[in-house]
Amino acid sequence: MITLQNPLDMHIHLREGEILKSVLNFSAKYFSGVLAMPNLKIPLDDTNSILKYKKEIENTAKELNCGNFMPIMSIYLSESLNKNELIKAKKEGIKILKLYPKGATTGSENGISEILNQKICDIFEIAQDLGFILSIHGESNGFSLEREFEFGEIFREIAINFPRLKIIMEHLSDRRSIDLLKYDNIFATITLHHITMSLDDVLGSGLNPHYFCKPILKTKKDRDALLNLALSGDEKISFGSDSAPHLESNKLKQNGAAGIFSAPILLPKLCEIFEKHKKLENLQKFISDNARKIYDLQNIPNKTITLIKESFKVQDFIVIGDDRIIPLLAGKSLSWRIKDL
Amino acid sequence: MITLQNPLDMHIHLREGEILKSVLNFSAKYFSGVLAMPNLKIPLDDTNSILKYKKEIENTAKELNCGNFMPIMSIYLSESLNKNELIKAKKEGIKILKLYPKGATTGSENGISEILNQKICDIFEIAQDLGFILSIHGESNGFSLEREFEFGEIFREIAINFPRLKIIMEHLSDRRSIDLLKYDNIFATITLHHITMSLDDVLGSGLNPHYFCKPILKTKKDRDALLNLALSGDEKISFGSDSAPHLESNKLKQNGAAGIFSAPILLPKLCEIFEKHKKLENLQKFISDNARKIYDLQNIPNKTITLIKESFKVQDFIVIGDDRIIPLLAGKSLSWRIKDL
Repeated sequence: MITLQNPLDMHIHLREGEILKSVLNFSAKYFSGVLAMPNLKIPLDDTNSILKYKKEIENTAKELNCGNFMPIMSIYLSESLNKNELIKAKKEGIKILKLYPKGATTGSENGISEILNQKICDIFEIAQDLGFILSIHGESNGFSLEREFEFGEIFREIAINFPRLKIIMEHLSDRRSIDLLKYDNIFATITLHHITMSLDDVLGSGLNPHYFCKPILKTKKDRDALLNLALSGDEKISFGSDSAPHLESNKLKQNGAAGIFSAPILLPKLCEIFEKHKKLENLQKFISDNARKIYDLQNIPNKTITLIKESFKVQDFIVIGDDRIIPLLAGKSLSWRIKDL
Repeated sequence: MITLQNPLDMHIHLREGEILKSVLNFSAKYFSGVLAMPNLKIPLDDTNSILKYKKEIENTAKELNCGNFMPIMSIYLSESLNKNELIKAKKEGIKILKLYPKGATTGSENGISEILNQKICDIFEIAQDLGFILSIHGESNGFSLEREFEFGEIFREIAINFPRLKIIMEHLSDRRSIDLLKYDNIFATITLHHITMSLDDVLGSGLNPHYFCKPILKTKKDRDALLNLALSGDEKISFGSDSAPHLESNKLKQNGAAGIFSAPILLPKLCEIFEKHKKLENLQKFISDNARKIYDLQNIPNKTITLIKESFKVQDFIVIGDDRIIPLLAGKSLSWRIKDL
């Protein structure tokens, strides 16, 4: 048995409308707070839209009887974002600025093409002064397996030029990125899938579209290095699932969508992994304590989650109209389950 | 305009029954001969089955009015293959022995687990004495992007221990394999897709199951090195398309099938590439002359194919019952087309 205090998922895609209603319980019931990504169909680059979305999440959580739960909001760094909007957002308690390189992943069409140009550096300057945390999907537009590594130069530049700006490297996938944590103001999130799978799971035998995500899963060496980093409880690392629900029809097609829907298995699977590696004592840091410090999270609602070592069968799918969403490890059995609240 | 004499495709999957009927015309009309792979649902590891399959191909080609055409047959190296069967096959004019490592690709379930054990080495010895050519899908069971490179050691061992045995490295995908051509008895085939695409085409933006194949497409450096080798007309290199028709329903699913259906575009696309790189003068070697020498092909039927520089729109799909097969570059326009015979 293990008891986790106030689990936090610092990177998740909750979507809107019907999908939000179908996936939110997995997060809102078992996590105190989750950082909701702003790359909706219309990207959330203004405060009013963000507050409206926050309300939608809160209302949905209430309808689903999820108990104490706090959505943590972020603002999308589009080309049209300006100082006034950042000031307004900050006043409303939004302090995470999310940067997508244009075209890097799902919902990044309104992202940034030239990250180090003057206009964007001005935004970084303002963000630093206002105390924003800069969360970055760090990938170049180069060869798929080199994108995160190539982006390292940009992380370095921002870290050096804006030393008071906290920077989060989202969803680490390449072991060569770990070196960047030597900069005082660089932190990172790590997903479940990048510490449990490699490119072989996507295409090593048959092709598995449900394991296709950005950044793409890399080698087993990358997987293992990131796993060890997560297991260590390193205080610069928060858990961020990057759970991303996509309709099956959008996954199993030509030009299929990138994203892995891991929300239904996060805490049980993490227990399984941390126990296997005899590091259960570090799970509390990875799943909550580190994030509370890094993001300076005050007032997150209290939630105590107990997991027990009993078999848990992952559901095969979630029905959405006449379509479905397939969770990671659908139909598989895990060795831990969440004790009924 | 360019005229090609007796085009040969030294590696193709023609399938059986309805699919054979639907795809054979692309090969049999425009190629003098093609090497038909033996990995059918029931692998062709005995002479009678091979001759029956040969007859099916020949009859289908006649029904489709494909003109002069010769299927070149190969025998599947299964664990149950023995000396008597090899002698029998040789008498019937079958002289290509195809080795699949067990589990490496579609239809390799009856392949070989331990390639360098005594029993298989005995088969290599017999094959060498009988004058067989050993055609190998060269991949280890390691990390997907390293499989061909890791298999290099086995190519080396066989080449050194059986110096009179001609060995073909099928569908080169990794530039590090090129070095193995220094062995006198090692040759190779190269596909169209491995000289025109990289892993980015599979998963660099959305996921493209129709570009998923084994060996998996690798880096742009690998692509370019193999392209240059093909363009050079190097006498150790034959063209082998590895065209592999799969029903769309088997491609666009979890655990999707590996294989690219390139048969409908081979000659036009090769003209386009060789012209672009100002190497049209080497295409005849790549598409026929080298193979005739390497495989010592006598009596291949004469066929003269003329291609002209006119726009050619690739068909979107081929209907198979209530399913479809999607060709490489479906719906795209090429700048060369085959002149009507």
